[in-house]
Amino acid sequence: MTQNPDAHRAEAAMSPRKARSALLARVEERLAGFLAEERRTWAASNPDAVELVDCVADMVSSGGKRLRPSFCVAAYLAAGGDPGSSAVVDAAAALELLHTSALLHDDVFDASELRRNEPTAHIRHAVLHTERGWHGEPRRYGESVAVLAGNLALVYADRLMAGAARTEWSRRIWGELSTELMVGQFLDVRAAARFRPDPALARWIALFKSGRYTVSRPLAVGAALADGTPGLQEVFEEYGLALGEAFQLRDDLLDAFGSAEVTGKPARLDFKQHKMTLLMSFALADEPEVRDLVGDDLPGTDPDELHALLIRTGIRDRVEAVIAERLKVANEAVAASLSPRWAAELQAMAKAAVHRDK
Amino acid sequence: MTQNPDAHRAEAAMSPRKARSALLARVEERLAGFLAEERRTWAASNPDAVELVDCVADMVSSGGKRLRPSFCVAAYLAAGGDPGSSAVVDAAAALELLHTSALLHDDVFDASELRRNEPTAHIRHAVLHTERGWHGEPRRYGESVAVLAGNLALVYADRLMAGAARTEWSRRIWGELSTELMVGQFLDVRAAARFRPDPALARWIALFKSGRYTVSRPLAVGAALADGTPGLQEVFEEYGLALGEAFQLRDDLLDAFGSAEVTGKPARLDFKQHKMTLLMSFALADEPEVRDLVGDDLPGTDPDELHALLIRTGIRDRVEAVIAERLKVANEAVAASLSPRWAAELQAMAKAAVHRDK
Repeated sequence: MTQNPDAHRAEAAMSPRKARSALLARVEERLAGFLAEERRTWAASNPDAVELVDCVADMVSSGGKRLRPSFCVAAYLAAGGDPGSSAVVDAAAALELLHTSALLHDDVFDASELRRNEPTAHIRHAVLHTERGWHGEPRRYGESVAVLAGNLALVYADRLMAGAARTEWSRRIWGELSTELMVGQFLDVRAAARFRPDPALARWIALFKSGRYTVSRPLAVGAALADGTPGLQEVFEEYGLALGEAFQLRDDLLDAFGSAEVTGKPARLDFKQHKMTLLMSFALADEPEVRDLVGDDLPGTDPDELHALLIRTGIRDRVEAVIAERLKVANEAVAASLSPRWAAELQAMAKAAVHRDK
Repeated sequence: MTQNPDAHRAEAAMSPRKARSALLARVEERLAGFLAEERRTWAASNPDAVELVDCVADMVSSGGKRLRPSFCVAAYLAAGGDPGSSAVVDAAAALELLHTSALLHDDVFDASELRRNEPTAHIRHAVLHTERGWHGEPRRYGESVAVLAGNLALVYADRLMAGAARTEWSRRIWGELSTELMVGQFLDVRAAARFRPDPALARWIALFKSGRYTVSRPLAVGAALADGTPGLQEVFEEYGLALGEAFQLRDDLLDAFGSAEVTGKPARLDFKQHKMTLLMSFALADEPEVRDLVGDDLPGTDPDELHALLIRTGIRDRVEAVIAERLKVANEAVAASLSPRWAAELQAMAKAAVHRDK
């Protein structure tokens, strides 16, 4: 048990938003402090190694939304966890580092050149390789460095979580979350290469990658650390899967219709990379015109023509309606089970996650 | 404390070799059982995911030397650990899975096509991609799958270790070992690209990658789980660093002078990839003729000419002498501190590790 009455009174005096912000500020301090300490250690032992630590630190400080730490901290507080505990701070920092690892690797798998308006790590290191006149292939060097930086971030995540997750239950959730992330990434990479319209698989991947990994599992980690009741796990699962699907649909819409300057990523990258997104799987299932245009050959489809068709057939509006419906399911899940103030807070978080422009 | 008098008596009745073999047999069972269970779980949830689990399982069952589990188990028993405990079995299995992860990634970084006489994972999946007529670049697909399989192996390693390492001390050693592995790999990749004769850096990398990662740290993990005295940690560090250097020199000699059929790896890969190995750094430091041939341009040096020169100048024999001297240091470290039967066992392990043909 990490609850204590004094902490409870202090927390009760604060609004959920303030209590959450206070913990998230400590998560930022922990991330910065941990990475600064690693930097110092390696600078003393082998200064070249600092380049790799910096790869991790640069991604962490590049302006992520901190969705996973936010959900973790919110569930922890909603389940009555002691706001003064350091375990939840370490766990939330671990979730962000795990995500940092996934982004570094994802950019290699997708051959992405831009992330958060900056050149991606593998591109930066390929350029450094060329500028320094080094031997071998710049692409392989840049990608190796990005993979190793992702590995280091994963190791850091595990180190932080090893100290935080003292119960069998919390360790199990972290193990499942990490395993699901790798398998989900693999299925995503595989589906993109295979490229067959498969709405069931697209939905499965979206539920796994966005629903569980981004929302349900971080909530479950927070609830486990607060020693919450198993009942809350089910609520968080329902909320997470509905919100995750809405979140993924928003991602797909932003990719298809958003602006690169706002999102920080190249526009319509999913089209160009022929991803079988949740959006595309809906469009192919519902719209004969989209099926006719794409046929068996999305890779051969003109991205501009597809883009125009998605608007003209009203698929964009219908996906907005699905987002609204999923949001409603998420909201009802928490309304039925949490205290009114924490239900309201999680509803506000859900709204922010799906009504965003980047 | 995991010691108990009954277990001690049972262990004492067994030779160190037999006690070690008995534990290692349980490590094999644990690895096979864990991976079979993961395979079943994913086959029921999403059969495509089994391809990724199999990538890990294939590498685990492809005939590795199990050096890290062997050292872990030996230190555990030498420090008086209960031979019936399951924690050391999980920890030793975790060390093998961490190594599996490193091999899967290493083969991508080195663009290796062959490992243990079989095509490497990234090559196999690039070929599958082509055979299946999938979209995108076969190389990127194959490498992404191998990286994700390595990630999955790393996650499996952490899951097994999270259950085994219950003390702050054992968790710290595992965290340091994993961090050092990633940094060591990065420095290795960086040094290969930079390619400057730098004997100090080559030795540092060898001590890190072979000494600590292969020998000292696995020994330290075993000793920590047995609740051994801190005195033993120092002994294992001394033994490990000396043996690690000898081990790495043997690796370099096998690469330079061994047979591909026996080692299962392409011959003279280090030369072809212009690696600044410990062997090359010795040769460049000691042999003006080698310096003259290589100049500032090892990548431009003819591998066959270099190979002949290393034999003619006697560098091969001198490296054998260094191996013998390092082995002596390792042997003396354990002779001074362990029971005679465990000192003899660790000496036999050291001999086997450096006198090998693959």
